Amino acid sequence: MSAPYVAAAVQWAPGLTLEAGVERAEAAIAEAARSGASLIVFPETWIPMYPYFHSRSADRVSFARLYEQLFQQSVIIGGAAWNRIAAAARDAGAAVVIGVNEREPRGGTLYNTLAYIGADGALLGRHRKLVPTLSERLIWGYGDGADLDVYETPQGRLGGLICYEHHMAPARYALAGLGVQIHASVWPGWETLHPVVDAATRQLAYENACFVIVAREVMSAERLPAGTPFAEEPFWEADGGSAIIAPGGKYLAGPATGEETILYAELDPRATIESKRWVDSVGHYSRPDVFQLRWNRTPRRPLVIHSEATPPELADAE
Amino acid sequence: MSAPYVAAAVQWAPGLTLEAGVERAEAAIAEAARSGASLIVFPETWIPMYPYFHSRSADRVSFARLYEQLFQQSVIIGGAAWNRIAAAARDAGAAVVIGVNEREPRGGTLYNTLAYIGADGALLGRHRKLVPTLSERLIWGYGDGADLDVYETPQGRLGGLICYEHHMAPARYALAGLGVQIHASVWPGWETLHPVVDAATRQLAYENACFVIVAREVMSAERLPAGTPFAEEPFWEADGGSAIIAPGGKYLAGPATGEETILYAELDPRATIESKRWVDSVGHYSRPDVFQLRWNRTPRRPLVIHSEATPPELADAE
Amino acid sequence: MSAPYVAAAVQWAPGLTLEAGVERAEAAIAEAARSGASLIVFPETWIPMYPYFHSRSADRVSFARLYEQLFQQSVIIGGAAWNRIAAAARDAGAAVVIGVNEREPRGGTLYNTLAYIGADGALLGRHRKLVPTLSERLIWGYGDGADLDVYETPQGRLGGLICYEHHMAPARYALAGLGVQIHASVWPGWETLHPVVDAATRQLAYENACFVIVAREVMSAERLPAGTPFAEEPFWEADGGSAIIAPGGKYLAGPATGEETILYAELDPRATIESKRWVDSVGHYSRPDVFQLRWNRTPRRPLVIHSEATPPELADAE
Amino acid sequence: MSAPYVAAAVQWAPGLTLEAGVERAEAAIAEAARSGASLIVFPETWIPMYPYFHSRSADRVSFARLYEQLFQQSVIIGGAAWNRIAAAARDAGAAVVIGVNEREPRGGTLYNTLAYIGADGALLGRHRKLVPTLSERLIWGYGDGADLDVYETPQGRLGGLICYEHHMAPARYALAGLGVQIHASVWPGWETLHPVVDAATRQLAYENACFVIVAREVMSAERLPAGTPFAEEPFWEADGGSAIIAPGGKYLAGPATGEETILYAELDPRATIESKRWVDSVGHYSRPDVFQLRWNRTPRRPLVIHSEATPPELADAE
Amino acid sequence: MSAPYVAAAVQWAPGLTLEAGVERAEAAIAEAARSGASLIVFPETWIPMYPYFHSRSADRVSFARLYEQLFQQSVIIGGAAWNRIAAAARDAGAAVVIGVNEREPRGGTLYNTLAYIGADGALLGRHRKLVPTLSERLIWGYGDGADLDVYETPQGRLGGLICYEHHMAPARYALAGLGVQIHASVWPGWETLHPVVDAATRQLAYENACFVIVAREVMSAERLPAGTPFAEEPFWEADGGSAIIAPGGKYLAGPATGEETILYAELDPRATIESKRWVDSVGHYSRPDVFQLRWNRTPRRPLVIHSEATPPELADAE
Amino acid sequence: MSAPYVAAAVQWAPGLTLEAGVERAEAAIAEAARSGASLIVFPETWIPMYPYFHSRSADRVSFARLYEQLFQQSVIIGGAAWNRIAAAARDAGAAVVIGVNEREPRGGTLYNTLAYIGADGALLGRHRKLVPTLSERLIWGYGDGADLDVYETPQGRLGGLICYEHHMAPARYALAGLGVQIHASVWPGWETLHPVVDAATRQLAYENACFVIVAREVMSAERLPAGTPFAEEPFWEADGGSAIIAPGGKYLAGPATGEETILYAELDPRATIESKRWVDSVGHYSRPDVFQLRWNRTPRRPLVIHSEATPPELADAE
Repeated sequence: MSAPYVAAAVQWAPGLTLEAGVERAEAAIAEAARSGASLIVFPETWIPMYPYFHSRSADRVSFARLYEQLFQQSVIIGGAAWNRIAAAARDAGAAVVIGVNEREPRGGTLYNTLAYIGADGALLGRHRKLVPTLSERLIWGYGDGADLDVYETPQGRLGGLICYEHHMAPARYALAGLGVQIHASVWPGWETLHPVVDAATRQLAYENACFVIVAREVMSAERLPAGTPFAEEPFWEADGGSAIIAPGGKYLAGPATGEETILYAELDPRATIESKRWVDSVGHYSRPDVFQLRWNRTPRRPLVIHSEATPPELADAE
Repeated sequence: MSAPYVAAAVQWAPGLTLEAGVERAEAAIAEAARSGASLIVFPETWIPMYPYFHSRSADRVSFARLYEQLFQQSVIIGGAAWNRIAAAARDAGAAVVIGVNEREPRGGTLYNTLAYIGADGALLGRHRKLVPTLSERLIWGYGDGADLDVYETPQGRLGGLICYEHHMAPARYALAGLGVQIHASVWPGWETLHPVVDAATRQLAYENACFVIVAREVMSAERLPAGTPFAEEPFWEADGGSAIIAPGGKYLAGPATGEETILYAELDPRATIESKRWVDSVGHYSRPDVFQLRWNRTPRRPLVIHSEATPPELADAE
Repeated sequence: MSAPYVAAAVQWAPGLTLEAGVERAEAAIAEAARSGASLIVFPETWIPMYPYFHSRSADRVSFARLYEQLFQQSVIIGGAAWNRIAAAARDAGAAVVIGVNEREPRGGTLYNTLAYIGADGALLGRHRKLVPTLSERLIWGYGDGADLDVYETPQGRLGGLICYEHHMAPARYALAGLGVQIHASVWPGWETLHPVVDAATRQLAYENACFVIVAREVMSAERLPAGTPFAEEPFWEADGGSAIIAPGGKYLAGPATGEETILYAELDPRATIESKRWVDSVGHYSRPDVFQLRWNRTPRRPLVIHSEATPPELADAE
Repeated sequence: MSAPYVAAAVQWAPGLTLEAGVERAEAAIAEAARSGASLIVFPETWIPMYPYFHSRSADRVSFARLYEQLFQQSVIIGGAAWNRIAAAARDAGAAVVIGVNEREPRGGTLYNTLAYIGADGALLGRHRKLVPTLSERLIWGYGDGADLDVYETPQGRLGGLICYEHHMAPARYALAGLGVQIHASVWPGWETLHPVVDAATRQLAYENACFVIVAREVMSAERLPAGTPFAEEPFWEADGGSAIIAPGGKYLAGPATGEETILYAELDPRATIESKRWVDSVGHYSRPDVFQLRWNRTPRRPLVIHSEATPPELADAE
Repeated sequence: MSAPYVAAAVQWAPGLTLEAGVERAEAAIAEAARSGASLIVFPETWIPMYPYFHSRSADRVSFARLYEQLFQQSVIIGGAAWNRIAAAARDAGAAVVIGVNEREPRGGTLYNTLAYIGADGALLGRHRKLVPTLSERLIWGYGDGADLDVYETPQGRLGGLICYEHHMAPARYALAGLGVQIHASVWPGWETLHPVVDAATRQLAYENACFVIVAREVMSAERLPAGTPFAEEPFWEADGGSAIIAPGGKYLAGPATGEETILYAELDPRATIESKRWVDSVGHYSRPDVFQLRWNRTPRRPLVIHSEATPPELADAE
Repeated sequence: MSAPYVAAAVQWAPGLTLEAGVERAEAAIAEAARSGASLIVFPETWIPMYPYFHSRSADRVSFARLYEQLFQQSVIIGGAAWNRIAAAARDAGAAVVIGVNEREPRGGTLYNTLAYIGADGALLGRHRKLVPTLSERLIWGYGDGADLDVYETPQGRLGGLICYEHHMAPARYALAGLGVQIHASVWPGWETLHPVVDAATRQLAYENACFVIVAREVMSAERLPAGTPFAEEPFWEADGGSAIIAPGGKYLAGPATGEETILYAELDPRATIESKRWVDSVGHYSRPDVFQLRWNRTPRRPLVIHSEATPPELADAE
């Protein structure tokens, strides 16, 4: 069991463009590391921004224009912009969990992705949100069961979920089954979500007996470039709500609202021992004779190519 | 979809004996019905009382004495005491959910049971807590997967869980899969549990898109008969915390603390429609291609006798 | 191979309520049968109506109000309203394919469902749209691979797809693999869709060598009850576009636009022979050594209960 | 994402001989490049000609004479005639997609091949038609699953299909899976095919969200050398029908008929973003949990020789 | 090794319709059995007839008319007409090998099928021609590698090939590998084929050391119903050429030409011993260190459905 | 494709000794060349003679004497006798295929070898019979898969097989896979073989769509030197049977019997085009998805020495 360490939740406004987003990520990682953080969590789809406009599809032209901008500014994991973030993590010597709008090199679909970078800058993995929430479905495709995972880090086993995935009991239970100890919990920063996030994350800290690092961004329409459609709409207003919660549900930091800030807390991994003594939902507090969750982790591939001549990125070893 | 109706959470101190418990139950049912309630929920093992002493096993003699008293005052479902409660429900024309210390006629084990009575006084069913929490295991046996259920009532589909069962994601998900609309949530009334109950029940109201009726008792050592062991201990102090929560997590009544009371709220079943539009965890917000919960509902019977000569109550058709 | 028969595509405005929708369905079935039709196809989610408001989620209150109305007026297959439609089919002696907003008795999710009734009034089956299109995802859940099917009828093998499912090459190919001969193709009646429907359905008639009966409704905001939100919006304007197409892509009737009408055409099943002589996409024109479509027809169940004590409607024989 | 560029569809009559075909190809490439085209598509088996006589096998002598002429004038990829076309592409600085009657140096079978040349004159690849259509089977062998591909070019990912391959749903889906952005669609120029091509290519532009460049030739019996068998037959009459279609199905140029011409259109790659937002058939609009296309890309070799002494052109690395 | 037995090759004209074909099959089986035959072979696609018109696709209307007639009169194995043939075999106590135009109940493609019936009337198996020859490809689809087989009968191991399949060295070798002892060799009766059949079947008798029963039909345009298209064409003239050949290539009966007849010969299974002493192409005369034929017997299925709810005829146990 | 040319089949009696054999070869090559032949084929093991005595092993002494004579008169390829034949070919400007009894310089085993000389006198290659037939196994060893080949010549691709190798379907198929156009087919001249050779070679001309030049010698016991053992036996009587066959199986010359002669025919390479249009067994008439022949062409070496000190002629780079 590792020593206590400092974790950080970055509650900054998004960059709005890929370039600005990466620059801000580099800055935030550096600052948090200077403050001692060895684990840094950024909000949902923070690069380039959470698509606040997703409920505005009635205006097809403006919606399409915003979507195209988002697509053009989205992240390809392993691409040049991404690699700058990874390098920042490596330079800071800190693990980074960051929400991005992601697409694949050949793909035409965006995903709401939570990506994990190790302190050496290597990609630990990425998880695509399983079910976008209501009008988010106009922006993002659905992930699959293959990429949800928990990563061994010097701080402990690190996992996470995105926004309303916290309402998917099986997803939470799956992470418990993998032994998660630190949970990155990313959400938009809308004020109306505050009580929802409060209940979901404290409950998670109890039932999964893990630390929860809640990262939510601040945003306002004033930050938008001139001419952005819907700029007068209130849904651009987000005031954060980031927090750090101990196993069992006690706030260690935050919730912080209304300002750009980075929250810090010292996390002592030993706390999970006491918490699991009360409830180990996949151990002494489980009833596997009654309930068994079957998790199909097969990647969802619409097309499977099998031949030695196949381009490696499409090959399926099966 | 049914019309709005009034639900009640009874936050009274327990009777401590079977006789007193039944009398108090009769009184509370009558009072709540007079106030218009057609659905009335009582706290965890309210008859005869929650066994506050369960962590005092270090004193073997006193512990045994208290346990024997509890055993003697426990409920046999279908027995005479039980039938008085059922009659009270029938007379009130209200459905009743009530926590009891239960044993079987031939049995030597107590169970932490939540029992459901229809407005006609008929037994809808009963659920024995699946995993007692820590030292509760010195009092109660473990239930099985066969008795967790949801019941069709005029108010909608009624189910419930007991205390830390709310931390069992599969149990909550199982109720969602049965289409629960009203959830009876029973807990002890300890103050330390307040934030836990707050998070668990609001989160439940969100992820299962159901009404939650939280019933927790008040209690204090002063109520104990003279000579009760450990009477000076603070764990006898419970100050309620009952509440009624709407789908989506908003408090409709409570949380009430510090006094004996009955909470009321009008529940409009249509609220579940809007709530499930956001999150239907077993419908549009599920990923059954990824996660499938397998629920073994076969009763756990240590002994299965098969013979024509078997006493009927033990016979197993299997 | 059966004799020639008359098929009909009903291009009527929807009833807007469940009651009015059923009445109109009864009337249309009777009228089409009087005109000799033995197969009658209704538009997408015609009962109670296609949810034209689906892109209006930005106005949360109005959207929720319309959604709740839709939910309340939706169809439970096997319920009373449904049985009246089935009886109308039986009385007319005609097979009926009809789009409905469907929900399950216990469910909280709506589905975009195409239901098939035999000439004896029996339910042949129902298919839930696999992927709702963009903002439709705010209304309907996703179907699974289990219910897509082709039914043997006196007129031939009958199948169908819903709207943009026609853009899912695997779905079309799956129907071809089941030997579809008559394809019910249902879409909204928006004018902007006319060229899309024209290409998709003629192409389908070619590649699957089947008859295609295109049913699309007419609608206008004037039909809405007073006070309906968004009533001034142009998306309520639908002008039909129904048609009947021969194998190989030639229009036998329609496309008809701008008026309530029922289209008729005599279909001679022998036409599929000649059409498949040119392209039998799962026979002589297939390359199964190169391409094989794997269709997972297992129902997607988030919860599987196994026990002899299980309520039959939830039991899973697996 | 690349900048907008000009694409061209060459609707010229074929050369009828290999020499004349190559000369005409050189001229057309040069002309199109002068007009700004950086991507040029020629019709199906344009070199030396589409074998209009394929349904005339009843006259065995004349048929055999025409077949032998076709065989003698067919293209060996990498041979001298081919290299002149490749050089023309290089000189023009344009990618070229061209249909040819192809044979292998040692082979006795002709193939209906679509060959891709990069702007540097290098062979990108070639695809042999998977299933010749009806009497075409008297002329061409069957290709295999190994050569269907999509090529990265400065204009985007370039692929294509030949004639009735557009009716093979799996083939279209396979290209979508490779991320095709520009689709070369080659067909004979018969007038009776006009509605078929219209539906197939517009539908393709929708379901694969790609640009479609339709190349179809003009031809008439008058162009034939004196003494050609069957010269009086109407099947020699082809009047083009070339077109350029945007993602989503709108015509950008054409369909042009009745004359020799080269069609041009400016293609803006960003259009695929908006089109895939509606339908990404292998992304957000796919259901890989239900449908999975398995593509066996192993070359079909009747004979596999393994030895170090093997002539390299026959060696199989397997 | 079985005792000598009598084999028969039926050289009768086809029935032209399904009904007449079955009647004639019944009559021929009865007659041959009366003459002592316990194994009876009929010509290629004898029911209802070999499609002599296959090279006449230039006249699309007449061709389509003839094709439709053929399709309507084709055989569904296991259907009523088929069962009458099977019953005739059972009544005669003779194994029957018969060529039929076959289709599947749901299918739109015809196959050139050779079907095997045991002396008890049970279906031994059926083989669909692997590659139709030139313009035959306008009539029949391609079989796969799964149905080529050799059947154990009281007379020995029985197999066969259809027409130009005899030119597929791997197909012949595959039968040798299965130990074929009696080979049913079916061809059209055109006179121009006589030397081809002579060489192919004698060579087969040598290299596979088996008996070869050659069945070819007689036919003339005069037999056609009035109004049949192309009735004046010489390709309707077929004059048989049936024969029975011993292992090693000696004619035991025939070749018979110019008349309807049934050929008989007594076959002594011991003859294969001597013949294989000279050449056992898969035994002492093989060189498996040099040559290995890999036979992929996987059925070619364009669509594979996997679920317990699958109609049995589509289920794939894989 | 090359111009028509004249091929010759030499049907002369063997020389019986190496010296006489070479002299007769020189004479026959010169004569055939004078008659215009540019490709000349000699019979099986024509130098010095086919070992007619191979079945006489019962007389061990005589058999051994004849074997020793044969061994002494056998050919070492590249040796002096051989070089005279090569020089004759060069002088004649004709390609020569000739059967010889071959041994290696260090070897103790004879091989039945078919050797190919180019028109420039260079050795194209040699093939050792893969499986000697029955008592031939007392004379010759077995060749391997490494030396079977097809050679590019001005006349086309030239290959061949020896006697009963024509009954090895994989060997024929291997040559087809190499694109053979002219096949040298060598056999003994026994009369009993006439029908076997007729069937095998015509069938070969059909299935491999190639010219077949059949060379068989005449021989009689009268030609033997006095004192030759078994001279009275009829197996010394061979009366030729040489022939030249067109692709598709038509005799262009022969079969000639009963006399020493040289057969000639003009071969037009274009004939293979028409023949492969019907059957290209490794092209359009193949089913590589079903059958794949794997040919191990690695030389079979009992001893592989690897060391820098190894004599070069034994070194193996492997």
